[in-house]
Amino acid sequence: QTLTPGQHDVVVFAVLAAAFALLAHTLHSWRSASEVGVRYRPAVVAALCIGAVATVSYALVHHAVDTGFTLVDGVYEPGEPARSSLFTRYVDWSVTVPLLTVELLAVCALAGARARRVRASTMAAAFLMVVTGFVGSQVVAEGRSTGALVGWGLVSTAFFGYLYVALVGAVRGSRGSMSAESFASLRNAAVVLLSTFGVYPLVYAVPVFVDVTPSWFVGMQVAYSAADVVAKVGFGVLVFKVAKLRTAEDL
Amino acid sequence: QTLTPGQHDVVVFAVLAAAFALLAHTLHSWRSASEVGVRYRPAVVAALCIGAVATVSYALVHHAVDTGFTLVDGVYEPGEPARSSLFTRYVDWSVTVPLLTVELLAVCALAGARARRVRASTMAAAFLMVVTGFVGSQVVAEGRSTGALVGWGLVSTAFFGYLYVALVGAVRGSRGSMSAESFASLRNAAVVLLSTFGVYPLVYAVPVFVDVTPSWFVGMQVAYSAADVVAKVGFGVLVFKVAKLRTAEDL
Ligand SMILES: CC1=C(/C=C/C(C)=C/C=C/C(C)=C/C=O)C(C)(C)CCC1
Ligand SMILES: CC1=C(/C=C/C(C)=C/C=C/C(C)=C/C=O)C(C)(C)CCC1
Repeated sequence: QTLTPGQHDVVVFAVLAAAFALLAHTLHSWRSASEVGVRYRPAVVAALCIGAVATVSYALVHHAVDTGFTLVDGVYEPGEPARSSLFTRYVDWSVTVPLLTVELLAVCALAGARARRVRASTMAAAFLMVVTGFVGSQVVAEGRSTGALVGWGLVSTAFFGYLYVALVGAVRGSRGSMSAESFASLRNAAVVLLSTFGVYPLVYAVPVFVDVTPSWFVGMQVAYSAADVVAKVGFGVLVFKVAKLRTAEDL
Repeated sequence: QTLTPGQHDVVVFAVLAAAFALLAHTLHSWRSASEVGVRYRPAVVAALCIGAVATVSYALVHHAVDTGFTLVDGVYEPGEPARSSLFTRYVDWSVTVPLLTVELLAVCALAGARARRVRASTMAAAFLMVVTGFVGSQVVAEGRSTGALVGWGLVSTAFFGYLYVALVGAVRGSRGSMSAESFASLRNAAVVLLSTFGVYPLVYAVPVFVDVTPSWFVGMQVAYSAADVVAKVGFGVLVFKVAKLRTAEDL
């Protein structure tokens, strides 16, 4: 789609602001990891890895938007690199969503074999959810086949359902093992993560229902960027708080 | 606008010098964070994040100025990338101004729920102030509509007013909880930050009152670069001093 300069600037703003916020989150996680006890350290290290991967991914998306559109007669014409402004995001998620489940589980109170099983199965479900969504939205007919979008979207949603139920169960099951204050923060973190999860399938479904006009394209880019910042930075800050509270309680 | 080679060089100097100063500030914050107590560490970690984001942002502005002008017949003709020499700055501020309020509040003496509330509301106000300014100066009619500049500028100024009052209140309220020496430094830091805040709306308002000639363009770039260095590096050095003094007092 051709974009007006204003629309183009909104997309660049959203993508670059997300990259900057993720860079800040990466440095914060790096510098502050030593403030939490060794037991909860994996949560902060996961946040660090998520931040770094997503920062690089957003740098690539920024490059795609920057070089993918050329200003001709006052409007921005899309070129070939513009495609990867959407699909690079799936690559990011295929690594970061499994790590987000690690981050959440590392401050829950599951132990031993049960913890390992839940972690392995949620990581696998998260990965398969993203990969099957990628097949529907990009690989089959470049995402222009409604049948493929719906079919692969449903497969992806099945993994999503499993993931959702397993994470809610892990958080619920942690109630008895920590102070009310820690549990309240853990609950907030889980609510933030799981509610942003709802944004992604909605944006995925946009082309099923409407013709993707330039305004829809802008809306999709802004929604994905905002959701990524909330799910990675906002959630990360709340998990850090749980880790610090639980560290203080363990002394 | 076409720039003379002299004007072009002044802009490149200002932008690159700011990038270098911010890089130095980033490294200083990284290496010296451990010199302040854990209680004030968030101030230095915020400075680190601000420095890193702004360094990257200035590298992008430098690239925009460098590739955005071509020397033809002894004058520099602007091309399409020259546009982002102004708007990349707004992206930077949307992340760094909220972090500057975190940095200041981390060395004030607010506690508990009150501190969290002030922090969340000033971060939101700072973000909205920058985003609404961005809409007026870039998105609507590429900033050439005086009505949009004034209208969105006023919305932005409302957030600015809230931010200003909340930060002054937080600094004033800290007087009783620290030594006179620490408070004097905190006051200096706040005066430096809040007086540079005045530069940005003035530069924003330039196109409302005058035709942006090449000399005005140069002046805007130099003013923004100088103000950014004072607000990030100068302010950061003063906050670091407060953090060290208060660390010594806490022992
Ligand atoms: C259910 C579903 C999806 C879910 C995606 C989710 C839940 C992604 C979460 C990403 C996050 C949290 C990124 C973090 O930064 C897809 C793949 C869009 C395909 C359509 C069906
Ligand atoms: C009031 C006002 C503005 C204020 C901007 C400020 C106060 C920016 C501060 C930036 C800083 C401190 C950067 C640090 O490096 C805008 C957005 C220009 C729009 C017009 C109205």
